[in-house]
Amino acid sequence: MSFEAKLKQLNIVLPAAPQPVASYIPAVRAGDLLFLSGTGPFKDGKIVFAGKLGRDLTVEQGYEAARLTVLNALAIVRKELGSLDRVLRIVRVSGHVASADGFTQQPAVINGASELLVEIFGEAGRHARLALGAAELPLNMAIELELILQIR
Amino acid sequence: MSFEAKLKQLNIVLPAAPQPVASYIPAVRAGDLLFLSGTGPFKDGKIVFAGKLGRDLTVEQGYEAARLTVLNALAIVRKELGSLDRVLRIVRVSGHVASADGFTQQPAVINGASELLVEIFGEAGRHARLALGAAELPLNMAIELELILQIR
Amino acid sequence: MSFEAKLKQLNIVLPAAPQPVASYIPAVRAGDLLFLSGTGPFKDGKIVFAGKLGRDLTVEQGYEAARLTVLNALAIVRKELGSLDRVLRIVRVSGHVASADGFTQQPAVINGASELLVEIFGEAGRHARLALGAAELPLNMAIELELILQIR
Repeated sequence: MSFEAKLKQLNIVLPAAPQPVASYIPAVRAGDLLFLSGTGPFKDGKIVFAGKLGRDLTVEQGYEAARLTVLNALAIVRKELGSLDRVLRIVRVSGHVASADGFTQQPAVINGASELLVEIFGEAGRHARLALGAAELPLNMAIELELILQIR
Repeated sequence: MSFEAKLKQLNIVLPAAPQPVASYIPAVRAGDLLFLSGTGPFKDGKIVFAGKLGRDLTVEQGYEAARLTVLNALAIVRKELGSLDRVLRIVRVSGHVASADGFTQQPAVINGASELLVEIFGEAGRHARLALGAAELPLNMAIELELILQIR
Repeated sequence: MSFEAKLKQLNIVLPAAPQPVASYIPAVRAGDLLFLSGTGPFKDGKIVFAGKLGRDLTVEQGYEAARLTVLNALAIVRKELGSLDRVLRIVRVSGHVASADGFTQQPAVINGASELLVEIFGEAGRHARLALGAAELPLNMAIELELILQIR
């Protein structure tokens, strides 16, 4: 099954690709690698999960935020490539979690991203990953994800 | 116009390439990708923008720091390649902003880097980007930038 | 001398490759680049350096933690490739140091990783590097390293 068909089967509708909040572009291709800009939990152009984990948001909310952020990243990919079916492999995900002092469950939060990628892309969605606790994130978003993909 | 000529036209003089502050090297090439080490707002071997945004420095100062940091990164590129004209594309910029609690304007700060890259490289300077708030940065520098370039 | 032989000569025994603490995989190959997931100072499946530099751990302990983390990363590489001798080059190391307020000696800490890589791989171990102070790291580990390698 194609990745676009899988998305439909999962009843997932991608949001509009978020606009960069500054002077850069959403994705750059170099060879067969596609480097995405960092993106966050946007819906209709607004951040819907703001604040820090361990203070303002529960792990469950962080998980949802990571899931939503992946949808925004995939919206960028589709806009860039025309179709998710040009994805060969999710290579690397770096996941940055706005973290209050003492919050160390970043992996459980970023799983919201990782598990959705595997749901959609299957084996091709299994990626290397980095989960980190950020002091602060742009616009007070709770999660920022950066993906590197291999594409055809 | 070549990128070196553009630099001259903009009256920009690159600083001496900064020395790594520890046991690593400034850049490594793999295929047509050039990975730069993180660098900061150095001038004559000294950090000229120290401290945290949101406490010690204004957004305007952070913007200047990001601009200066790009010059240091480009000095590394020129030293490595002989000339900026071997740059095919700025692929990805990760921008780390030392951030006091509650500072969330990292994008406005890192624009100092992004806008200068576009000034110098035009379309080839448009890059994917990640802006993050760091708890602390080496040597108390306000900004650390890491670039990936595609080169010929 | 092969890298595996060098390891023996240095009397270094790699630990068992750490298991991902969540739903991702330890390494992904794209072309001749190998992207490793972030890993930490594990021994027998447990984190042995926890807490923050500048509060809970000295720079010397951080250095040891970075050294141990490299061993874990190399255990992943060997498991993935069968032998360290398939490494062409260590390309890029990003080093994240859990940092208490005011701790800015991240480079001295990450040197524990950089110096060991050069001990083992010689010229091929000299890498581009990024050292950053993280607000928090997964599972309260003191160090997280992420490597990109070029392999044959």
